[in-house]
Amino acid sequence: MNRGKRTEIATLGEFGLIEHLTSELTPMNKESIMGVGDDAAILHIDNHEELLVSTDMLMEGIHFDLTYFPLKHLGYKAAMVNFSDIYAMNGTPKQMTVSVALSKKFCIEDLEDFYDGLRLACSQHNVDIIGGDTTSSLTGFAISITVIGTAPKGTAVKRSGAKATDLICVSGNLGAAYMGLQLLEREKIATAGKDIQPDFSGKEYILERQLKPEARKDIVEALRKENITPTAMIDISDGLSSELIHICKQSKVGCRIYEERIPIDYQTAIMAEELNINVVTCALNGGEDYELLFTVPIADHEKVASMKDVHIIGHIVGSDMGNAMITRDGVEMELRAQGWNALKEE
Amino acid sequence: MNRGKRTEIATLGEFGLIEHLTSELTPMNKESIMGVGDDAAILHIDNHEELLVSTDMLMEGIHFDLTYFPLKHLGYKAAMVNFSDIYAMNGTPKQMTVSVALSKKFCIEDLEDFYDGLRLACSQHNVDIIGGDTTSSLTGFAISITVIGTAPKGTAVKRSGAKATDLICVSGNLGAAYMGLQLLEREKIATAGKDIQPDFSGKEYILERQLKPEARKDIVEALRKENITPTAMIDISDGLSSELIHICKQSKVGCRIYEERIPIDYQTAIMAEELNINVVTCALNGGEDYELLFTVPIADHEKVASMKDVHIIGHIVGSDMGNAMITRDGVEMELRAQGWNALKEE
Repeated sequence: MNRGKRTEIATLGEFGLIEHLTSELTPMNKESIMGVGDDAAILHIDNHEELLVSTDMLMEGIHFDLTYFPLKHLGYKAAMVNFSDIYAMNGTPKQMTVSVALSKKFCIEDLEDFYDGLRLACSQHNVDIIGGDTTSSLTGFAISITVIGTAPKGTAVKRSGAKATDLICVSGNLGAAYMGLQLLEREKIATAGKDIQPDFSGKEYILERQLKPEARKDIVEALRKENITPTAMIDISDGLSSELIHICKQSKVGCRIYEERIPIDYQTAIMAEELNINVVTCALNGGEDYELLFTVPIADHEKVASMKDVHIIGHIVGSDMGNAMITRDGVEMELRAQGWNALKEE
Repeated sequence: MNRGKRTEIATLGEFGLIEHLTSELTPMNKESIMGVGDDAAILHIDNHEELLVSTDMLMEGIHFDLTYFPLKHLGYKAAMVNFSDIYAMNGTPKQMTVSVALSKKFCIEDLEDFYDGLRLACSQHNVDIIGGDTTSSLTGFAISITVIGTAPKGTAVKRSGAKATDLICVSGNLGAAYMGLQLLEREKIATAGKDIQPDFSGKEYILERQLKPEARKDIVEALRKENITPTAMIDISDGLSSELIHICKQSKVGCRIYEERIPIDYQTAIMAEELNINVVTCALNGGEDYELLFTVPIADHEKVASMKDVHIIGHIVGSDMGNAMITRDGVEMELRAQGWNALKEE
């Protein structure tokens, strides 16, 4: 390891680091249309279709805690998170490779549970497991999944196409997965070393949002049915603020969203109240919702307004106007990316 | 984790485990031609080309030791190992995704070194880095690489096509990478806590074979030039015995190889002598050579016999005859897969 100059990774954060490491890459193959910097890479394969490739790595102790995360759910979630990236490109996931590294504390039955979850997710989304690697680790469980999908030529939606006056839309509701995580963490501490089971009644929805997220294939299909092609799209893994800022940065635009329009489930609100956390902060920065955030031309207003489970939360403005949320009392508040960032100092 | 029945993973080993977990998978997409069970999966993309997908996970402390493995070399090797899988399918690697998880002991300069190695390997083989993930780990360095390649339709070579009377060929020489590893391990112990540098003079070749392996693109190109399509092919990552048994098992055939024909470099032989290890055992079970092992119809005998750096080491026989090596003194010795197996009990 480096014994000379040492720059701590936390100084750049995950996105800064990837940008730093990949900034000089220029494609050598004509098929490689777009690489690093979106939910998935785009490859040209023939005159009809484009290939989408997305990859994710999940580490025990960083991304999941096996004290309360059942391995079957982990398999399901690991697959869904990757399908979500392909849907966020307006594509269809088709194949998946799965690599797993695990220490001696795990047995074959554990791995079977994990694969049961993977297979369940795959069968629901018609995805084939085509390969992988299974190996040892010194400590813990590590997962790396790569998903390959397709989109008809020219229909893949990047983060970079949003234009001023476009409407900003989001599916489902936000902040629930984060509240589920807070609840699980609280009960982990409360029940540690005791022979009691936590009581989760009335909190099933937020738990499910954390433990069993669903990739929004239905939204992508509904958009197609309505003949709406989003100008930009991303899935919400790091929180609404962070993802919206990605879209604005890559599209070279600004945004205005309205606090009162951010969709929040009542269980999320109750849990936030109980934990004394601002519920809008949860929705903005919570992460792991795996909802789709997208922009559409204002001409599609009527169509998106009538779509089930889609909410118009604001609009795109010029880049000089910055990124802001209008609070319930009419104050403009700058949006900041405070989302969960696996490489930032805590 | 599982609190009921617990079957230790070591009871199955890596290949047994993958077989166990993936045995029930049947493809749902017509594009997924072949999945688990070869160097790469094969996907049908159009009428001219097939897509090859291969993935590998490398864990610190299991696959590499950063005490003596420079990060730049690690990046180079991690890429090469994956390119090798695509060449072993008779394909051309085109794109790569790279995921890395690392603990706080690593700094940005470390990651730059790793990426320098990756980029060097990619530029030599015209491969584009199209995506990836960079995240934290609680301990150590974890790498997951997926490579995508192509082959003209119908030309991808699987492990399953070897026929009785086919010639068994291997490129380069065997056992050197393993001897390099033994040397590095010996010097690590010898120099631990002391301010001395090990003397590696006269041992450069075996070190390079361990620290900077090269994927045999040249052999695949030479075979094409000679119009030879191997009936089966695999790259040697786990040792000649283990890989040859894979080919025989999947082709439902047996094999005879000749001890005197196994190519061994003189530095490998000297090091084996020095460490009091049987050099043929090294060549059979050493692993990490990343040479190509392939079978060709006997009609191609003259052509392969005159190819540079290709050695005919035996021939395929009926499955009833089993897998054996004829020793220098004419004794038939059964081949066993004793290769390096990351999930077997030590």
